[in-house]
Amino acid sequence: MHIADRLAQAVLSTGTPLCVGLDPRLEQLPRAMQPSEPTLAAAADAVARFCMRVIDLIAGRVGVVKPQSAFFELFGPPGLAALQRVQAHARAAGLVTILDSKRGDIASTAEAYAQAALGVAPVGDQRWPVWDADLLTVNPYLGRDAIEPFIRTARAHQRGLFVLVRTSNRGAGLFQDLLCDGKPLYRHVAEAVAAWAAESLGACGLGDVGAVVGATHPAELAELRAVLPQVWLLVPGFGAQGGTADDVRAAFRADGLGALVNSSRGITFPTHPDDPDWEGAITHATTQAIADLACVTPALRNHAGTS
Amino acid sequence: MHIADRLAQAVLSTGTPLCVGLDPRLEQLPRAMQPSEPTLAAAADAVARFCMRVIDLIAGRVGVVKPQSAFFELFGPPGLAALQRVQAHARAAGLVTILDSKRGDIASTAEAYAQAALGVAPVGDQRWPVWDADLLTVNPYLGRDAIEPFIRTARAHQRGLFVLVRTSNRGAGLFQDLLCDGKPLYRHVAEAVAAWAAESLGACGLGDVGAVVGATHPAELAELRAVLPQVWLLVPGFGAQGGTADDVRAAFRADGLGALVNSSRGITFPTHPDDPDWEGAITHATTQAIADLACVTPALRNHAGTS
Repeated sequence: MHIADRLAQAVLSTGTPLCVGLDPRLEQLPRAMQPSEPTLAAAADAVARFCMRVIDLIAGRVGVVKPQSAFFELFGPPGLAALQRVQAHARAAGLVTILDSKRGDIASTAEAYAQAALGVAPVGDQRWPVWDADLLTVNPYLGRDAIEPFIRTARAHQRGLFVLVRTSNRGAGLFQDLLCDGKPLYRHVAEAVAAWAAESLGACGLGDVGAVVGATHPAELAELRAVLPQVWLLVPGFGAQGGTADDVRAAFRADGLGALVNSSRGITFPTHPDDPDWEGAITHATTQAIADLACVTPALRNHAGTS
Repeated sequence: MHIADRLAQAVLSTGTPLCVGLDPRLEQLPRAMQPSEPTLAAAADAVARFCMRVIDLIAGRVGVVKPQSAFFELFGPPGLAALQRVQAHARAAGLVTILDSKRGDIASTAEAYAQAALGVAPVGDQRWPVWDADLLTVNPYLGRDAIEPFIRTARAHQRGLFVLVRTSNRGAGLFQDLLCDGKPLYRHVAEAVAAWAAESLGACGLGDVGAVVGATHPAELAELRAVLPQVWLLVPGFGAQGGTADDVRAAFRADGLGALVNSSRGITFPTHPDDPDWEGAITHATTQAIADLACVTPALRNHAGTS
């Protein structure tokens, strides 16, 4: 199935555009999940077990998860083996996975990153999946030949991309908002994304190259929804970073599709590490986020539970 | 020692600004170094052994190496364990290492990448180095709060950064050359780099935040040398990508410092995989690249062999 339609199915079958970000900061893990000893291997095992438990708690209610690779890379090779366990667990639970690595490089280097994330590593006559993600976040700064190898690899494996357009951080405007030939840089990137997305549309009318647009910029979100009618938006910054359901209202098409709204800390770390009922807190935070987003995606209400 | 002075010492002690890029594409490895079986672990071991052999061949003649993380990541956790072996081998050989990962993210996510590359991973009361690089390449698209966590971590560990400014690929201009408020985007990035570098200068007069500027753009290289007098330039694109010694002439200060010129394929894959004397070919290619660059850095001639 076309990746854009897989995202649509993930949203329609759960009735929510919520994407849960897995950013396993070790110091925020519940006391009971802390590493058994102060080694990289124990830390990696702890973050894997925590993320897999989060997946168990949200599976069936949320359709998409977004592991943040930095928090796995921090623990070196064992951390990246933990990422593989988390990816496999998410897939087995029927979740679509967005690997948030913000990769960007040129030519065969970009192709190596793309093969690792979305394709397979060829060794002799064998082909090995590495991170095996459904979608990958990528950085556009290096230009056309930095994105196209990712697109080619994604299409060869029916996977997709989210290109950084307008990020959610406070300092994002330093370069992204610069006026270039009469419009901000992020609009130039958005227009490139629109052209790439149009090359391969799913039945839902959306393409396999999406755009990252922060929830913390509601005006830009509305603007980009309008100029990117065929583009899935990945909207970080909801919840702990300050974005509200009202802020992301403009990200959706009339049918409720077209945007995934990511919450990381707000879902996975809703309580103090010493709270014995941290699992209940995660379940409650998930319910709350789904309810908040339901208010701004009324068209999805009739879909939940069907797929 | 300040990282800018460590780079100066690496150049002065060898008499060459050459940096050798380690981009171990499996299919280009010499026949004798190919994996013994078609597994990720065997592929990872092959690229580690190849890179370590290259390091042995160039150590003492070249002061800086630049492993490209994508070609290690392609083989998953074993590939990244191979990267650690290569990094350790390079350090043991007295080489300064630039980890070419082009990372970029915000806030605590950027900090996690920075800790992995340049600092330590804290687990309980222990601190573990992960990639243990001297310098890291980073992508500026996300803006100020995407670079500052890298700078803070680098400074805490006397390490450094190279920020992408004008990359060497053909499609780089799509965004980097856009005219923003009267000058190209890359000049805006360059000016931010100049300000960051000025915050922490070594005795050599150069800072700990450098700029990546491709050898394939000689005019921009001259322009950026002039506007970035306190900034180390990392210049990829020399050799196999088409840049010549003449093209990089403008990258140096009068004393021959201020730029590292990277060659990857031209040094590490100078011959056919079936050439039994691939080691001789690497040695010869290194000699040739050093000689070519010596013509455009006459001031370095008296330094070689002193440190």
